[in-house]
Amino acid sequence: MNLPQPSPFKTEIQSDAARFRQQIRSGEFTGQTSGWCPGLVQGNIVILPADWATDFLLFCQLNPVSCPLIHVSQPGEFLMHPLGADLDIRTDVPEYQIFENGVRTQKAFDIREYWQDDFVTFVLGCSFSFEDALKRAGISIRNVENNTNVSMYRTNMPTKTAGRFSGETVVSMRPFTAADAIRAIQITTRLPRAHGAPIHMGDPALIGINNINQPDFGDPTPVNDNEIPLFWGCGVTPQAALENAKPPIAITHVPGKMVVTDLLNEELAVL
Amino acid sequence: MNLPQPSPFKTEIQSDAARFRQQIRSGEFTGQTSGWCPGLVQGNIVILPADWATDFLLFCQLNPVSCPLIHVSQPGEFLMHPLGADLDIRTDVPEYQIFENGVRTQKAFDIREYWQDDFVTFVLGCSFSFEDALKRAGISIRNVENNTNVSMYRTNMPTKTAGRFSGETVVSMRPFTAADAIRAIQITTRLPRAHGAPIHMGDPALIGINNINQPDFGDPTPVNDNEIPLFWGCGVTPQAALENAKPPIAITHVPGKMVVTDLLNEELAVL
Repeated sequence: MNLPQPSPFKTEIQSDAARFRQQIRSGEFTGQTSGWCPGLVQGNIVILPADWATDFLLFCQLNPVSCPLIHVSQPGEFLMHPLGADLDIRTDVPEYQIFENGVRTQKAFDIREYWQDDFVTFVLGCSFSFEDALKRAGISIRNVENNTNVSMYRTNMPTKTAGRFSGETVVSMRPFTAADAIRAIQITTRLPRAHGAPIHMGDPALIGINNINQPDFGDPTPVNDNEIPLFWGCGVTPQAALENAKPPIAITHVPGKMVVTDLLNEELAVL
Repeated sequence: MNLPQPSPFKTEIQSDAARFRQQIRSGEFTGQTSGWCPGLVQGNIVILPADWATDFLLFCQLNPVSCPLIHVSQPGEFLMHPLGADLDIRTDVPEYQIFENGVRTQKAFDIREYWQDDFVTFVLGCSFSFEDALKRAGISIRNVENNTNVSMYRTNMPTKTAGRFSGETVVSMRPFTAADAIRAIQITTRLPRAHGAPIHMGDPALIGINNINQPDFGDPTPVNDNEIPLFWGCGVTPQAALENAKPPIAITHVPGKMVVTDLLNEELAVL
């Protein structure tokens, strides 16, 4: 019987991802995941008790640019089979952040001791997917060039409220020349599940950013005179909403330390 | 026998176009065509003797953003059937401009007396097609609001030379807020045969425009503080190339007074 076979290309890079997750699981790798397993989708993580999950699911639906859903688990489920045969969300993120009543209280490399049977896991698309697409289009990305974390800012753009979840939109910024900026808008438009097109460009003050050299998260990124800063919806937005919602417990990834899945970035593309 | 019938919608707007061309042909209408026959493709016109046509065809191929080809006639052919059953290029443009040795020498409402058996007609896509798409997306266009001609500028961006044709790129400018500018880039990307996406945005000095309030063609357009000017390739670019090439005779439309075809703007869209 001739069964369809997985493409050797996909099998090969999935093996890379499985190996990389094994290194994370064993505690051998605890760093930023930017640049690792190129071509594969990385995700932002939010883990919440089930009685907070419905509000948060609605929050993601209402704010899909900042919070594009890639996967939502059943309560208590910690194996994320659709994202990777071996993927255990309790051990496969390089570093976790624990929120108690909306306050970041501690970090952890493994959350098995915190695990609750009612935990629901949300995996949200991440800008690393579109950075990969930009790089493949020959567009240079300042924070990748400089090997720094992308600059992220709180803005005056409110998210849409869902139950107990509300707050301002957090954006990430990358500067480009005009021609590259136009191309970057075209390329990222193809990836709505990785934040899609920018939501602002040009004058940062128009979205409530007073000093572009002082990001609220990540590292500063120099913007040259002939460049336009482009601002994308950011997966740190839900962390700002957690601060307001104050669930008794919530667990996220540490910004920049994402979960690496077996999905191809190209599988997220709408065109 | 059941033959496929043209859609009533298309038949109806094509009748509108035929009626409008009849008004132009009879000399009843000699104005700007912006806003007439919405939904239909309007074109820039360049008419040249056959021994200049090959160079110009190559010029269009090398500079497709400024000079997107919609139609090229056979030598001597003045009926443009693929663009409209009745379309006679000698009479169906509201006003023509005659170039002799690269110099604009006169204007005319009808070019039958100038017609040569070796004339080749080029019809190039026009920004009116994407303005129509922007309006349908609810985006307001300043020059349409203000009922002025769009602002056009000579730039320092050279075209690619083809034989005797060379020169700088001419651009048209429309200002938008950041959110509308991002949407405008997405929408115009769908229409490469109507100049496609902008080729520059932001600082006009970076493309050699010293005073945005003094366009080289068309009317000035106010740009508000919270707006970004977007610059598109423009169908006046070939007129600048004609000035350099200096063919003994060439005929174009007067800017803003285009040929109206039966093609739907949506037929030009790549997506």
